[in-house]
Amino acid sequence: MDLDRLAPDAARLWADVHELAELRDGAEPGWTRRVFSEPYRAARDWVAARMRDAGLAVTADPAGNLVGRLPGRHGGPPLVTGSHTDTVRGGGRFDGVVGVLGAIEVARRLRETGTRLDHDLLVVDFLGEEANPYSGTCLGSQAACGVLSAADLDRTDARGARLGDAVAGFGLDPSAMLAPTWAAGPLHGYVELHVEQGATLERAGVGVGVVTAIVGIERFLARFTGRSDHAGTRAMDDRRDALVAAAKAVLAVEREGCGAPVHAVATAGNLLVEPGADNVVPGSTVLSAEFRSVDAGWLSGVRGRVTAEIARLAAENGVEAVLDWAADNDVVPMAASVQNLAGQAADALGLTWMAFPSGAGHDAAHLAARCPAGMIFIPSRDGRSHCPEEWTDRADVAAGAHVLAATLTRMDAAPALTAG
Amino acid sequence: MDLDRLAPDAARLWADVHELAELRDGAEPGWTRRVFSEPYRAARDWVAARMRDAGLAVTADPAGNLVGRLPGRHGGPPLVTGSHTDTVRGGGRFDGVVGVLGAIEVARRLRETGTRLDHDLLVVDFLGEEANPYSGTCLGSQAACGVLSAADLDRTDARGARLGDAVAGFGLDPSAMLAPTWAAGPLHGYVELHVEQGATLERAGVGVGVVTAIVGIERFLARFTGRSDHAGTRAMDDRRDALVAAAKAVLAVEREGCGAPVHAVATAGNLLVEPGADNVVPGSTVLSAEFRSVDAGWLSGVRGRVTAEIARLAAENGVEAVLDWAADNDVVPMAASVQNLAGQAADALGLTWMAFPSGAGHDAAHLAARCPAGMIFIPSRDGRSHCPEEWTDRADVAAGAHVLAATLTRMDAAPALTAG
Repeated sequence: MDLDRLAPDAARLWADVHELAELRDGAEPGWTRRVFSEPYRAARDWVAARMRDAGLAVTADPAGNLVGRLPGRHGGPPLVTGSHTDTVRGGGRFDGVVGVLGAIEVARRLRETGTRLDHDLLVVDFLGEEANPYSGTCLGSQAACGVLSAADLDRTDARGARLGDAVAGFGLDPSAMLAPTWAAGPLHGYVELHVEQGATLERAGVGVGVVTAIVGIERFLARFTGRSDHAGTRAMDDRRDALVAAAKAVLAVEREGCGAPVHAVATAGNLLVEPGADNVVPGSTVLSAEFRSVDAGWLSGVRGRVTAEIARLAAENGVEAVLDWAADNDVVPMAASVQNLAGQAADALGLTWMAFPSGAGHDAAHLAARCPAGMIFIPSRDGRSHCPEEWTDRADVAAGAHVLAATLTRMDAAPALTAG
Repeated sequence: MDLDRLAPDAARLWADVHELAELRDGAEPGWTRRVFSEPYRAARDWVAARMRDAGLAVTADPAGNLVGRLPGRHGGPPLVTGSHTDTVRGGGRFDGVVGVLGAIEVARRLRETGTRLDHDLLVVDFLGEEANPYSGTCLGSQAACGVLSAADLDRTDARGARLGDAVAGFGLDPSAMLAPTWAAGPLHGYVELHVEQGATLERAGVGVGVVTAIVGIERFLARFTGRSDHAGTRAMDDRRDALVAAAKAVLAVEREGCGAPVHAVATAGNLLVEPGADNVVPGSTVLSAEFRSVDAGWLSGVRGRVTAEIARLAAENGVEAVLDWAADNDVVPMAASVQNLAGQAADALGLTWMAFPSGAGHDAAHLAARCPAGMIFIPSRDGRSHCPEEWTDRADVAAGAHVLAATLTRMDAAPALTAG
């Protein structure tokens, strides 16, 4: 196959990225399009229309994933690619989006060049990949892979609202997410294009990343209960200050990350203070934090170490700490077969590449439980992501879509992909 | 004068306290009635009606204070008492309220017993005494005493809204607050009944407190600016985490208070995190904190010490810290003459009393700049205040109103009160 025939229309793909970016929540900072929001609904209608224009047969599965199918010559287990179009609050324009729009561009080029794959190709926009207020991520890919549980749907946000109710409010049937119907059969393989969201490629001056493994993630929501008091009349040695206890916990989280092995990070992301008045000793606080690593041993010890340390620190201030832990995913190796084909594709296109693990979680981590799966990274400027300044150059977006096309055709040509 | 004649109707006063408590914001915890809110407006209409029923001539001054006047035999500089009826978020039923309703009860008893004072008596419900979101307190008493400034009205809350606009939204003319018309002439004296809000009286088993001085207060609003990043891909040693910097500042505030002289406290009351997502390194945070002491020397050094320490700590994390300081009031001694008369009044009623400073700020701190001023404290159970559990026994509320009546008649009988 002449690979240049599948080279993307870089201008068309770039225009798509920026047209989708405008479908955002104007009341929030940056390029915000959170799962279940109205801008998210509008964006997915737009994506569905782009899929249809590309010649894909579009369905919305019971898990809320948008699935565009391009029939192959022989059928059988489908080849899957895709990513997500939701963002964090104050997020950017590329995270997830390049994987969905890049895949649509691949489908357009296949059709425009009259190239038919052997396998059916599924282009998927997975529901709600980003961390949501209910301490979860990857709703659609988890549901598609049968690992979303009723307990997950019962999870609540800091104000007590249930995830299941948010799902229903978006027009989906929560119970249907527990027994998805698409992807019930075997899948040939999965590969996902994504921005790196870190600075590895940029620092190395390399164009393409082949992902070796995806970090495991542990998260907690900690509730600190002290006693609210008048800030002027309660002596320092007679306080049960829930903000002081939470501040110590923030620093304990940071220490855990700084003392960890390579590719481990720890982040306290949010802190709510009650009652939050200038002249009241805070009576309660809620802190959320997360821990990521490709070192499964380190990660397995985080819960015990951090729970004990935070309880000890809170007790110094007479404050009770209750930690509610949620594991988002274990450490997930990517299939060696997909890594090899992606590296060969980059070589064939004359692009430099390097292999390294992903510090971010991805839908691919769940697909890997269903079939041989891999990921292709393209550079993020200054390594910045989950912020309005997130940026990937147009040439890198086009190169990523080209490597994706070349990897997919190689995966399609393989009789069977091995997981190892 | 037969002091028993002015004994309050304890049941009537107690019923008033609880009737007013019901005029609260049902969407907020506890007994919330914040300045400028609709429940606050309703409560002040209720207070004005109670004043009229007590035979007081009620006016609302340009500063938003409710003033009830009981004419005296000879006129001249009026004798003033009162307090406030706003609360903190999640506050209680007694803070401020007992000083306003206790004063109305005194006026009722004066009228019911046919007792006329020499001086006009002004019963005042001062506007917005509690700390407001604009880093201010004591709006009405500051305005009445000519110390509210245009700069104060330009202060903004954490989201950028102006105090002056909130004042106008409540139906007041902000510019009129800078040149109040009531209390323009000399005042004979001021005494305020208030719950202690601390545990001094309860621990000592004493019924009445005579306040010697009111703490000075310094507050800051600190804005920490770091860099928001993807929590999974940004290495620990390459972060500019604004929540970590703020957490260090919370602990620095606590250390400053713990290392301070007696009657000094330091409290970080609120912390807002942006963007506040689980998987984003916080890019910016806003922290509010305050420092109180009757030690003017210590208090004068707080700004310099704390600003330098927080800047140093934030720099460790590559975060910029900008502290906006506001002094609410200096240390204010109460007039010895009023202290003496309040102590004599308690003695005459057979009540135990003790003298000590107030750890909380009060409207009396501003009135003290206008005339000899003092305060009478009654016990707070467990020393708790600014919380829903705030409690003072019915017998203590009645005793407080009785001491207030006896102190007012003594102040009225003095030809002139000395400030010293």
